[in-house]
Amino acid sequence: MPAPVMTVEELSQFLDAEFPQIHAGGRAYFVESVAPGEAVVRLKATDSHLRPGGTVSGPSMMALADLAAYVAILAHIGPVALAVTTNLNINFLRKPEPGDLLCTCRILKLGKRLAVVECGIAGEGEEGFVAHATATYSVPPRS
Amino acid sequence: MPAPVMTVEELSQFLDAEFPQIHAGGRAYFVESVAPGEAVVRLKATDSHLRPGGTVSGPSMMALADLAAYVAILAHIGPVALAVTTNLNINFLRKPEPGDLLCTCRILKLGKRLAVVECGIAGEGEEGFVAHATATYSVPPRS
Amino acid sequence: MPAPVMTVEELSQFLDAEFPQIHAGGRAYFVESVAPGEAVVRLKATDSHLRPGGTVSGPSMMALADLAAYVAILAHIGPVALAVTTNLNINFLRKPEPGDLLCTCRILKLGKRLAVVECGIAGEGEEGFVAHATATYSVPPRS
Amino acid sequence: MPAPVMTVEELSQFLDAEFPQIHAGGRAYFVESVAPGEAVVRLKATDSHLRPGGTVSGPSMMALADLAAYVAILAHIGPVALAVTTNLNINFLRKPEPGDLLCTCRILKLGKRLAVVECGIAGEGEEGFVAHATATYSVPPRS
Repeated sequence: MPAPVMTVEELSQFLDAEFPQIHAGGRAYFVESVAPGEAVVRLKATDSHLRPGGTVSGPSMMALADLAAYVAILAHIGPVALAVTTNLNINFLRKPEPGDLLCTCRILKLGKRLAVVECGIAGEGEEGFVAHATATYSVPPRS
Repeated sequence: MPAPVMTVEELSQFLDAEFPQIHAGGRAYFVESVAPGEAVVRLKATDSHLRPGGTVSGPSMMALADLAAYVAILAHIGPVALAVTTNLNINFLRKPEPGDLLCTCRILKLGKRLAVVECGIAGEGEEGFVAHATATYSVPPRS
Repeated sequence: MPAPVMTVEELSQFLDAEFPQIHAGGRAYFVESVAPGEAVVRLKATDSHLRPGGTVSGPSMMALADLAAYVAILAHIGPVALAVTTNLNINFLRKPEPGDLLCTCRILKLGKRLAVVECGIAGEGEEGFVAHATATYSVPPRS
Repeated sequence: MPAPVMTVEELSQFLDAEFPQIHAGGRAYFVESVAPGEAVVRLKATDSHLRPGGTVSGPSMMALADLAAYVAILAHIGPVALAVTTNLNINFLRKPEPGDLLCTCRILKLGKRLAVVECGIAGEGEEGFVAHATATYSVPPRS
């Protein structure tokens, strides 16, 4: 897998500019790191992401996986690209403990038309995933 | 498929009491109807659900499918049950037009341990789905 | 959804010519019918499709859904097209009774690059699905 | 993840005794190795698994993923258990080269009622997966 073409800072600025509404209700998503074929995004849950008991809701984990997969792809094809999710499959494995969640994504395929990404979500410092997803994005033709 | 055991009003009151945070940012989700094996939930999108251009975001459609599947199950097993999503698979088919979205759910299986629901999301009055999902819930043993 | 451009007979001949190996071990798959946006394929199970007890195995149902979705797409885009499965998601709902299975497919999207098909598998004359799948195919650009 | 409770030999004997029909048309599936939380199964493709051009068919890869996930679970819960697939999601990433395929499975969750397994399929000695799957099995209550 080739090296990323965007830095954490560039990715963060791109998201801020293009998707300001993901920060509605307070800044919650943070690009943590990128590496060849990989990206990590943090969810610092606010009240709107929580269920009674203080655990992060399923839809918040789906949104996290979708965003993190997008970040992983963008990091490798650059900010000009218009990628849209075509499929997302998620398994919820166990209830997360209160606290931040980290979504670690690995690109399984970066093709001419489709990109497939695998995402594992875990509590910070915890072993084992609380959720696992695979997402497919339609990506624009690239030279 | 047996008849529902909860009315639209009972389902709405249950959601308000148990999941007040789904209304954070303004009331957006409305139980529209229930029927044997089915339920329909409306998303009246607010700014937090939209992407630039005024179309509903992917994560908002995932949250809608998850909630609507839950409503369909609850309608048939009653409010005492604690059901949790174990798997959700969604295909995004086309960009929704601005306006409300309706999620129509059909229960494919209501077993002793698992329930499987199929969900089609469409713009109101539009033909064809903008997204299609299947969701599996773990349901508590029932007598 | 437009009308099919291939008949049941044309589809059967195309499968025989292009995929003779699906008949290895005896002819088992039969195109039953096509209609606008739909197709039905029958599995007349042979010993190689069965599990102890005489019920059709999971992999045989996956193969049936994959083939039937392909037939539904082909019926609408014609025999020149080269379509390949990119994603298949299947829920196994209940153990099938011994006997033929019918897979009824409905095209959810027939786009320029991707086609998405929903498949319900049921025993002949039985109510309720034994399995439900959604499949995505990559389709070649068409004029 | 705890250590496996069955060896490669015990798993192979169990499959031979309980699922003789997977060897219909010639022995094709071989348990390669087990480790804590993991299992590897080889597909030595015969003619019935191939598409024109000599590449392994999609349904053969689905059957491989389903079997390998089952082997991974069985290795950790023992031969008495009756586990059935409830969901399988697979992404086909690229056309496999002719030759054996290895399916490497990792258990993501081994719960009281459900087990979730991730599977990557690759050509022997090749880098990168040709397909990636996640499978859910319903497992019987254990003490």
